[in-house]
Amino acid sequence: MSSAPVVDAPPDMLTVATRARAASLVLRAAPAAQRDAALAALDALLGERAEALAAANGVDLAAARASDLPPATAARLVLDAAKLRALRGGLAALRALPDPLGAVSLARELAPGLELRRVAAPLGVVAVVFEARPEALVQIAALAIKSGNAVILKGGKEAAATNAALGAAVADALRAAGLPGDGAQAVASREDLAALLAHDALIDLVIPRGSAALVRAVKAATRIPVLGHADGLCHVYVDASADAAVAARVARDAKADYPAACNAAETLLLDAAAPPATVAAVARALLRAGVTLHADAAAAPALRAARAALAAGGGGGEAGGPLGDVVDAAPGDWDTEWLSLHMGVATVAGVGAAVAWINAHGSHHTDAAVVGDAGGAAAAAFRAGVDSAGVFINASTRFADGFRYGFGAEVGVSTGRVHARGPVGVEGLLTCRYEVVGGGHVVAQFAAPEGAETVDVAGQALRALKYTHVTHKL
Amino acid sequence: MSSAPVVDAPPDMLTVATRARAASLVLRAAPAAQRDAALAALDALLGERAEALAAANGVDLAAARASDLPPATAARLVLDAAKLRALRGGLAALRALPDPLGAVSLARELAPGLELRRVAAPLGVVAVVFEARPEALVQIAALAIKSGNAVILKGGKEAAATNAALGAAVADALRAAGLPGDGAQAVASREDLAALLAHDALIDLVIPRGSAALVRAVKAATRIPVLGHADGLCHVYVDASADAAVAARVARDAKADYPAACNAAETLLLDAAAPPATVAAVARALLRAGVTLHADAAAAPALRAARAALAAGGGGGEAGGPLGDVVDAAPGDWDTEWLSLHMGVATVAGVGAAVAWINAHGSHHTDAAVVGDAGGAAAAAFRAGVDSAGVFINASTRFADGFRYGFGAEVGVSTGRVHARGPVGVEGLLTCRYEVVGGGHVVAQFAAPEGAETVDVAGQALRALKYTHVTHKL
Repeated sequence: MSSAPVVDAPPDMLTVATRARAASLVLRAAPAAQRDAALAALDALLGERAEALAAANGVDLAAARASDLPPATAARLVLDAAKLRALRGGLAALRALPDPLGAVSLARELAPGLELRRVAAPLGVVAVVFEARPEALVQIAALAIKSGNAVILKGGKEAAATNAALGAAVADALRAAGLPGDGAQAVASREDLAALLAHDALIDLVIPRGSAALVRAVKAATRIPVLGHADGLCHVYVDASADAAVAARVARDAKADYPAACNAAETLLLDAAAPPATVAAVARALLRAGVTLHADAAAAPALRAARAALAAGGGGGEAGGPLGDVVDAAPGDWDTEWLSLHMGVATVAGVGAAVAWINAHGSHHTDAAVVGDAGGAAAAAFRAGVDSAGVFINASTRFADGFRYGFGAEVGVSTGRVHARGPVGVEGLLTCRYEVVGGGHVVAQFAAPEGAETVDVAGQALRALKYTHVTHKL
Repeated sequence: MSSAPVVDAPPDMLTVATRARAASLVLRAAPAAQRDAALAALDALLGERAEALAAANGVDLAAARASDLPPATAARLVLDAAKLRALRGGLAALRALPDPLGAVSLARELAPGLELRRVAAPLGVVAVVFEARPEALVQIAALAIKSGNAVILKGGKEAAATNAALGAAVADALRAAGLPGDGAQAVASREDLAALLAHDALIDLVIPRGSAALVRAVKAATRIPVLGHADGLCHVYVDASADAAVAARVARDAKADYPAACNAAETLLLDAAAPPATVAAVARALLRAGVTLHADAAAAPALRAARAALAAGGGGGEAGGPLGDVVDAAPGDWDTEWLSLHMGVATVAGVGAAVAWINAHGSHHTDAAVVGDAGGAAAAAFRAGVDSAGVFINASTRFADGFRYGFGAEVGVSTGRVHARGPVGVEGLLTCRYEVVGGGHVVAQFAAPEGAETVDVAGQALRALKYTHVTHKL
């Protein structure tokens, strides 16, 4: 087995997608032990090829240094010994997890001796488009192998050499386990991606991992279902009933803990009836964290007063930083994803107006309300009314991710409503199949459903309950 | 309240979709009692307006008689007193069912006092495109109201007058319950449909209910997710181990019980090693049901011999009908959805070849194997290998529908892999939201996840299990 990636004339994307589909049919039927053996082989290969991988990574890093790549992006390219060790540890842990395929989510006896089961099955072919971090290639490929999917991996061109070496390792690991190497194919160029996205008959799902611009571009370019989120315009609403300290703490964390994250808050909504002390506490916490507040006319005076009091008291920002400013909000601020220490502040007339505001200006990602009674009417109205994947009460929007939710390895975050919503673990790579096992059962034995179909809405449900026997529902 | 539909200048489709979105935000937050009150009001209105509905239906029926509409299509237009009574009974039954919204499918304590819940939520706006049967309008609208969705209904032009009257009744029922009438809007023309399908930012799902041509046209014309199935090219595979009587019974039912159905079988796959007696039994059952067998060269002699024996014995077809014929298969037969008493018959070298054949020629709808041991290796290989929504062992493909599965009212059947697969009940109109309720929790209290994200695949899952406490998982 060669440790260097072997590249013939690159295949066209129809060929890549067709090979992936064929490989997926083998992977879906492969026993868990064989899929886990491929993960073990990949673990071993990453060890054996550590030097070659370091050399390939060195090529990408040298090119990054020679170009004007932003330092943050260049830093994400690094695949050093520590990251490789962590990757290998992850592979071992993934191997130890139970097989996601075959899990039964519903089982019923439709008639004596005729059993229905809904069983977890792989989607088939998943295309993943990611930027910069080359270890994402291994992570996603490993999740695909574990769940019986073929994967097509399009990495960033900045990591081209590293990606090629890692892609070859994944394909070799599949082959070492007796599985088709086409189960994980890496493609490189933007032109390849555009061509791939046309093959909606062969690719079941596209997962873009990267900037909002990438997600938007992928969504606009394909009919394949896309699992991703382009925007994270999250809100924190402070109700009049809120505890001032809780409101200050949640608003500060949601905005300033990691402002570049998609689950960071961008707009603060203040209940017009909120007590001045609550508004002042929230303002102080944000200003001390260095947040510049873009305030509407109703909110600005109180925010400016809070800043003046802080400054007069000689208080600076946290950790020696400067206080944030208070400026007048401009049109467009309410639809701006700042991703930095800026925040819109708007005044709304209670929870109903906050819900309407969020549904009008938000991105359906995650929105939080701070209320006095988490079980009360304001909280209930917020939870039922806000049309977002995450609806939080008295907790920071920053909890919205698969790690925090305890989902383990995260495939992506979806702000779409179909297939998956919110943070998505390995179940985002799964669908189901219905298995029916009988003893020669035929429908001619039973009453005709065709007649029933023409007449009722819910009568079917009631009759179905009479003749089915739920043996197991997960 | 007027009993006649009132039509002003028809709104453009952006207006329709925008109104539907706005109405959906009210419906999603409406309590179950209010949504059920709308169903009760609709039930009552259908009774009050029985005469006006009959008159509107009479207009459509007269137009159908004056045109060259096929009699079967014209028959489906009828909305008589019996159908209206059944519709009203269905509404009452649906009202009695539990609220599908708010059901909790996962609940975890992420940290002391910080709880995560995954809660069923409406999709938002669903467009339904259906042909002929006007009662489908009421059935789907009722499911949408029950599940807190706004719906846009595009019926067939053959039922235009009936649909307008029913659509007005649904909208009036919503208003009678204090909900926005825009929650159910009926649109009429093909041009309207084309315009609607462009509004993927406002419509969450399209459900075409009708011919394969309709489903294909809708899929080709929109970026909105489509729940539907264009094709039903189903197979029955007869393994060498099959019981001859079971094979004959299943094949006959799958093909001949209702040949026009999408879950009827189109191709019979015979294991090359199947005993002659098994092949003869299957052939006799199909020929007596009047099925013309399009046989490959390997199968044709045995099938012709079976037919000759039947004819020589003086046996005709079932119920006095003629015997089917045996003809040579033509290229293309294996990719033909006959939807009539014709069936391809191909010979394959065992279950592995059958799986490959089905994955190559099938439509991923439903495929069945007849095997001697439903728990044996051949059955397992078939179940794991066939990439279809329904994978059946020793049971007719005709069981593949929501009524047979006991799902109650069927929203549609999906051969797509994302969102929903197979027969889909009301859950096809649902998504989820994640609710997090805390006591002022902020992520700054916890270890940074950003660092973790850069290093592992499954380590996250293991650590997550350590710090989360699953309180409830459905």
